[in-house]
Amino acid sequence: MPASPIRRLMPFAEAAVAQGVKIFHLNIGQPDIESPAEFWEAVRNPQYKVLEYSNSIGNVTLRQGVARWYQKIGIDVTAPQLIVTTAGSEALRFAMMAALNPGDEIIVPEPLYANYLGFAVEAGIQVVPIPTRIEENFALPATAEFETRITPRTKAILICNPSNPTGGVYGQDQLAQLADLVKKHHLFLLADEVYRDFNYTDQPIQSVLQIAGLEDHAIMVDSVSKRFSLCGARIGFLVSRNAEIIQAATKFAQARLSPPMLEQIGVEAALERTPPAYFQAIVEEYRGRRDLLVQRLGAMNGVVCPRIDGAFYAQVRLPIDDADRFCQWMLEEFRHDNQTVMMAPGTGFYLDSQNGRDEVRIAYVLNQNDLGRAMDALHRALAIYPGRTCEQSAVASA
Amino acid sequence: MPASPIRRLMPFAEAAVAQGVKIFHLNIGQPDIESPAEFWEAVRNPQYKVLEYSNSIGNVTLRQGVARWYQKIGIDVTAPQLIVTTAGSEALRFAMMAALNPGDEIIVPEPLYANYLGFAVEAGIQVVPIPTRIEENFALPATAEFETRITPRTKAILICNPSNPTGGVYGQDQLAQLADLVKKHHLFLLADEVYRDFNYTDQPIQSVLQIAGLEDHAIMVDSVSKRFSLCGARIGFLVSRNAEIIQAATKFAQARLSPPMLEQIGVEAALERTPPAYFQAIVEEYRGRRDLLVQRLGAMNGVVCPRIDGAFYAQVRLPIDDADRFCQWMLEEFRHDNQTVMMAPGTGFYLDSQNGRDEVRIAYVLNQNDLGRAMDALHRALAIYPGRTCEQSAVASA
Repeated sequence: MPASPIRRLMPFAEAAVAQGVKIFHLNIGQPDIESPAEFWEAVRNPQYKVLEYSNSIGNVTLRQGVARWYQKIGIDVTAPQLIVTTAGSEALRFAMMAALNPGDEIIVPEPLYANYLGFAVEAGIQVVPIPTRIEENFALPATAEFETRITPRTKAILICNPSNPTGGVYGQDQLAQLADLVKKHHLFLLADEVYRDFNYTDQPIQSVLQIAGLEDHAIMVDSVSKRFSLCGARIGFLVSRNAEIIQAATKFAQARLSPPMLEQIGVEAALERTPPAYFQAIVEEYRGRRDLLVQRLGAMNGVVCPRIDGAFYAQVRLPIDDADRFCQWMLEEFRHDNQTVMMAPGTGFYLDSQNGRDEVRIAYVLNQNDLGRAMDALHRALAIYPGRTCEQSAVASA
Repeated sequence: MPASPIRRLMPFAEAAVAQGVKIFHLNIGQPDIESPAEFWEAVRNPQYKVLEYSNSIGNVTLRQGVARWYQKIGIDVTAPQLIVTTAGSEALRFAMMAALNPGDEIIVPEPLYANYLGFAVEAGIQVVPIPTRIEENFALPATAEFETRITPRTKAILICNPSNPTGGVYGQDQLAQLADLVKKHHLFLLADEVYRDFNYTDQPIQSVLQIAGLEDHAIMVDSVSKRFSLCGARIGFLVSRNAEIIQAATKFAQARLSPPMLEQIGVEAALERTPPAYFQAIVEEYRGRRDLLVQRLGAMNGVVCPRIDGAFYAQVRLPIDDADRFCQWMLEEFRHDNQTVMMAPGTGFYLDSQNGRDEVRIAYVLNQNDLGRAMDALHRALAIYPGRTCEQSAVASA
């Protein structure tokens, strides 16, 4: 079981805080946006006296509300096609266990969200990475490349769209390619779409549930954590038109009894009543942060930032010898006006930790003022880091 | 993956409700007691604006509060020896995954809490049941009996104390026997102690964490669900002095990011400030329910009720041909003043569904008025059930 790359540097961060150092947290996708007032109002309703179990697959009224909410955004599903889970994490675990048996294989474009590896270990399934390249903005490889990795044990392909950690968005062409592939090889297509609303392109993001002909193949994982700034609520959804998948996931749901009740009440209200302006403001805020990040990274010598079209992450190449060492050095030794920056080492987003050694994942979840100060600190750090490789790289590529 | 015996009859119950029938729910351990006012007060505090992730292993202040609470009841543990989980269910799953590898075996006295089987399937581990007998009040078998089941793959023994589903309590002698056994064979002793406060004996219930010499062996699973009537909060604890167990469980905790935040805030307040009178009233209420149940079942011909010393369940033998058929018949066909009773078929609490066919699990979680009416209905049902076996049994045992 791998330790989380997002959290394993915490002891060094805690030590820095104990010294009075201010840390800009670009290591974890915890937005600083206020959760919707509609959520707070609902959970503070004094009518509740006993906090009971909900139905294992979620309160019926919440499931109906979730279906209405999907229908509103053009995803035509009904309440029986979805279950409420304890956050996207559990939806993903249930999806893996429902679609794959122990020993089966799942192909995942790399770099990948590190926790996929943990859930795969728990489910006893094998993650088969397929590399994507920062120079190509982490676009999906050609079909032939996927097919070299398909074995009799391959049961699914898993994508994150928009992508954590890359910030990329898979457009209709890439999704159509995946659809052909999963139909041809009788695979499931699991899509983690928790960042769907964080879209900076001028095209809507297509859900795998909107691809014709994928009814039996598509499994979508979703969560309220990011779009409602409700990371602590632990409410997610598993959605599929494949009834066997929902049936299998329901058994796993029954074993753990129920998702948290109070947050289901709050989320039901938030889905129903949060005004569109709440999301528009969030997306505009993040677009501004994205622009600032791209501009600031672009001005740093030796830094490669891919195109960022969605989510609130960027997998960035830095002129450094070793991302783990660099991120730890930032916490242990580097100070800029008594401030420093915490980032997730890129190695944690690859199966083989020899990959991603010159990459970090940046979660741009701070307001622009703080993000700017974090970039000031990073710029300075890259100039003085003892393991800096920029000059050499420049020579090598000359 | 087995379907939950506690929940699989739900469609029949829903159909009965749709016909206007009142159902007494003795099938699931959902207490009807109000959750503590201290919990509600804390979660309604308007100071919170962003519902953030907590630390993966729980808020530090909650973990410190949990440690103080254990110390108060004579269990000497510190915050680093415990993690906060998404209810007892997750604590159990983490405990199994931390202590056992896929393919390993865990010995569990039978009848057992059905969801243990689901978690074992998820973790890829083998449950090895060891039978206990209703005539002996489900006491643990002799050490020699355990030893016939120990193989090189056996890594742990799992008990539930007080027991769901039997209502039995393992006294100091039985626990000492288990302690010798796990030390001799280098096993872990996992104890599900979520019903610790529901104790109707005149002796305190001993935790596995209070047994000298078991520091490296004992893993305790706990929850606030029952004692605070907070089943919907999904807050539990995994506690062990074995640092490797806590370390391994922490990795699983990191993969799923965090337990629900709002409920952690409420539980921290409930642990700190709920007055002892709250628990005393609950235990007295349940003692009265237990007494009523035992008295009413004792007056029914052919019914065997074991001694009930704790929790709020009883695994009861009925004069019936088939518990699954009987429980379904109760929901589909039997009506008494337009009322009926839902119970969990005994078969669901055994690995081999040939066992427990004349048993049901009764959760006596209703107030005494409702419980009495439920017993009226059960009494009448046993008199007219077509698959009744009482007369034959009486002849056979004569």
